Amino acid sequence: MNPAIQYVRDNRKRHLDQLTELLRIPSISTDPEKKKAIGQAADWVSSRLKEAGCTKVKIHKTAGHPIVYGEWLGAPGKPTLLVYGHYDVQPVDPLELWHTPPFEPTLRDEKLYARGASDDKGQVIIHVNALEAHLQTTGSCPVNLKFVIEGEEEIGSPHLDPFIGENSKMLACDAVVVSDTAMFAKGVPSICYGLRGLAYLQIDLTGTDSDLHSGTFGGAVVNPANALVAMLASLKDANGKIKIPGFYDNVRKLKAKERKAFASLPHSDSRYKKALGAPALFGEKGYTTLERTYARPSLDINGIWSGFTGEGAKTVIPAKAHAKISMRLVPDQTAKEIARKVKKHLKAIAPKSVKIEVTPLHGGEAWLADTDHPALAAAGRAMKGAFGRKPVFVREGGSIPVVGTFADVLKVPCVLLGVGLNEDNIHAPNEKMDLDQFYRGNEAAVLLFEEMGAGTPGGKKKKK
Amino acid sequence: MNPAIQYVRDNRKRHLDQLTELLRIPSISTDPEKKKAIGQAADWVSSRLKEAGCTKVKIHKTAGHPIVYGEWLGAPGKPTLLVYGHYDVQPVDPLELWHTPPFEPTLRDEKLYARGASDDKGQVIIHVNALEAHLQTTGSCPVNLKFVIEGEEEIGSPHLDPFIGENSKMLACDAVVVSDTAMFAKGVPSICYGLRGLAYLQIDLTGTDSDLHSGTFGGAVVNPANALVAMLASLKDANGKIKIPGFYDNVRKLKAKERKAFASLPHSDSRYKKALGAPALFGEKGYTTLERTYARPSLDINGIWSGFTGEGAKTVIPAKAHAKISMRLVPDQTAKEIARKVKKHLKAIAPKSVKIEVTPLHGGEAWLADTDHPALAAAGRAMKGAFGRKPVFVREGGSIPVVGTFADVLKVPCVLLGVGLNEDNIHAPNEKMDLDQFYRGNEAAVLLFEEMGAGTPGGKKKKK
Repeated sequence: MNPAIQYVRDNRKRHLDQLTELLRIPSISTDPEKKKAIGQAADWVSSRLKEAGCTKVKIHKTAGHPIVYGEWLGAPGKPTLLVYGHYDVQPVDPLELWHTPPFEPTLRDEKLYARGASDDKGQVIIHVNALEAHLQTTGSCPVNLKFVIEGEEEIGSPHLDPFIGENSKMLACDAVVVSDTAMFAKGVPSICYGLRGLAYLQIDLTGTDSDLHSGTFGGAVVNPANALVAMLASLKDANGKIKIPGFYDNVRKLKAKERKAFASLPHSDSRYKKALGAPALFGEKGYTTLERTYARPSLDINGIWSGFTGEGAKTVIPAKAHAKISMRLVPDQTAKEIARKVKKHLKAIAPKSVKIEVTPLHGGEAWLADTDHPALAAAGRAMKGAFGRKPVFVREGGSIPVVGTFADVLKVPCVLLGVGLNEDNIHAPNEKMDLDQFYRGNEAAVLLFEEMGAGTPGGKKKKK
Repeated sequence: MNPAIQYVRDNRKRHLDQLTELLRIPSISTDPEKKKAIGQAADWVSSRLKEAGCTKVKIHKTAGHPIVYGEWLGAPGKPTLLVYGHYDVQPVDPLELWHTPPFEPTLRDEKLYARGASDDKGQVIIHVNALEAHLQTTGSCPVNLKFVIEGEEEIGSPHLDPFIGENSKMLACDAVVVSDTAMFAKGVPSICYGLRGLAYLQIDLTGTDSDLHSGTFGGAVVNPANALVAMLASLKDANGKIKIPGFYDNVRKLKAKERKAFASLPHSDSRYKKALGAPALFGEKGYTTLERTYARPSLDINGIWSGFTGEGAKTVIPAKAHAKISMRLVPDQTAKEIARKVKKHLKAIAPKSVKIEVTPLHGGEAWLADTDHPALAAAGRAMKGAFGRKPVFVREGGSIPVVGTFADVLKVPCVLLGVGLNEDNIHAPNEKMDLDQFYRGNEAAVLLFEEMGAGTPGGKKKKK
């Protein structure tokens, strides 16, 4: 038995207890009242990196939340792998839908329930555990490691790009690994080679100076809530096609080869629908479910609010109406281009009876890896070793904007080795991590370091 | 000088202090947590009726909030006037937009700011003050009086109709007077002869079992917020016409005479727009602003909520989306008919990818009085005496469902003698009552009793 594998097996309880500690910290990056928790989470990560064997551990201040850095460079001549992850988490509302409090990690049915269990605390930590396993058993590690664990991923990583730019020498490496995605399914390990981008905007409409009585004034003035629903409804047609001028201009067409590969994945619409509890699936006509989420852009209302939302009936014409909308983007759309087009279109269609403000809140670029790169093959072998099955190559509908930055600034490949599951309820109530996924994740990271450190590391810079 | 008029002038401060006391009680009828305040308000009204000289004062329990009754029947042979009003008030959110707390009545620029100042505490009380004025100065009152002051007007008076039905003998009268409307404008007294009805519904859509990550799932499933805005947007066309099948079937056409009368009122769209702070007015094409609010049905979103509504960006596909909508109705639409048609239509247009629930919350019928009735003439003379100008005859876009009930059950005319102003911000933050309106209102009530008690009372039952 591989001693590092034996080590993570022997230390399952300790590693789980440590994760539980981290999950108790309510490090919601978007909430200004959680600044203290953010600091606590950064401190925790910093201590854990030191404990695992990292040197030069430092909490780098930014204008926002800090970035924790640590490294282990004790394998001269071996490739260097940069592990990226985040210690911040999504908000927790609607709180009343959580079966147990989001920051009181709770074990049920071999699953650990807590905000951040899968996204991303429970995933980033597997690499720290793997470093510890190698060092504690052999005194060394097959690869050099650099850790960059930030606190603003859930708000678009506004200070990470400058950090990478300013510290590109410190961060120089042969490959980046990110564990912040889901496997294709439980029992179906996967390597993700594509991510969608994101453009997120807030729309604020104002009608009158004050809320009005809907009897006295109903029919006389525009109701900004009515105006807002009309504007939002017009953004998509009945076939799920987005109607914003120029929206599809730069969308890269799906290749026949990819469509074939997606079609061969063990996906079932009826199982998928049942798992989500959806009465029916719906999306852009002419594309399968996987094609729509992997490789076609989408537009969703993430939040809408106006007027009276309490119990009972209040007969008011609201003065204001608000919505948060976001578009998932695919190559070769850019967040900036789409935000500009959407803002322009919304201003053009707003009725003159309302004032409109459109504020871009968040953006990130889509990303596609070269599936032939040896780093991806090495990751594939590690996943096979840990999960007992050759991984499938998939894309992911979500966005990890920093992946594009690493590719651009450090000029290295990026490996997305996710051990979460789609049913982990990330960004939703009752987020969880399956214990089995966590334990196998630790083993996958152990094996990844070995695979990358052996033979021709996939992480080597391609000079071409 | 009329001694009762002199009395209300001498007692302005006392009457204002009393109103202030009542306005301190947060009697929000729709809020289950305000049950105690409802009881306090009913007690206050009961004490005040006794103090003013009423007998048989009683707080009648109902399955909901109590109805306060009191009477003064010391003028045998004279007509009996029933005064209806309500001690409950609307909710106060958005609380942050109030300049002073809604239940801490505050005087600014000769206006009293508080929830309920105009709707209806500050209006119903003028009749109690007027009874007191007559009794304290002459030992008698020109008319017999019955007071019915309820606590559920703002939630559709669910227990008032049964109360009137069961107590029709006790409530027998020659006319009903309601002060719960606004004058046409400051300096332009008016008598209201028409009200719109109301059908109010809540719509709840459910997509998936749980909120979803908008990256992983965006494009795969229907977003109930997107479905809701599409459904709501389809209810009206770009000309403000309501597209629900059969909605206009029973709408009584405006008579040329009424259109002419409305057109002659001292209304200015540009002043109206400016007063509301609206960038532009908007409503059903082919009708003037007054025609739209007085005599055409309307449809408004009163509240909408779904997904993330906090600060920042949360990339979620909400599991649920909700809206409260209401239609103002005109003769001869009925609340029941319209609620049924709207519910049926919403269920028909809901995509099969969401579950839908539609719950009627509130309803009331439109009402139109006979403008030739002598009771309206008597009220006109009282308003002229108090406000120094002959009142104009107007309709009102709001709804007072009980007016229809009084007309149907007691078979008597109803006089809507409102002393509020359109700019009173009823149902909105910073509700207020102009002190001048309140003081003149007391005088209008004093004169109304005299006018109704003298000559051929307008309140006499018409036997035909």
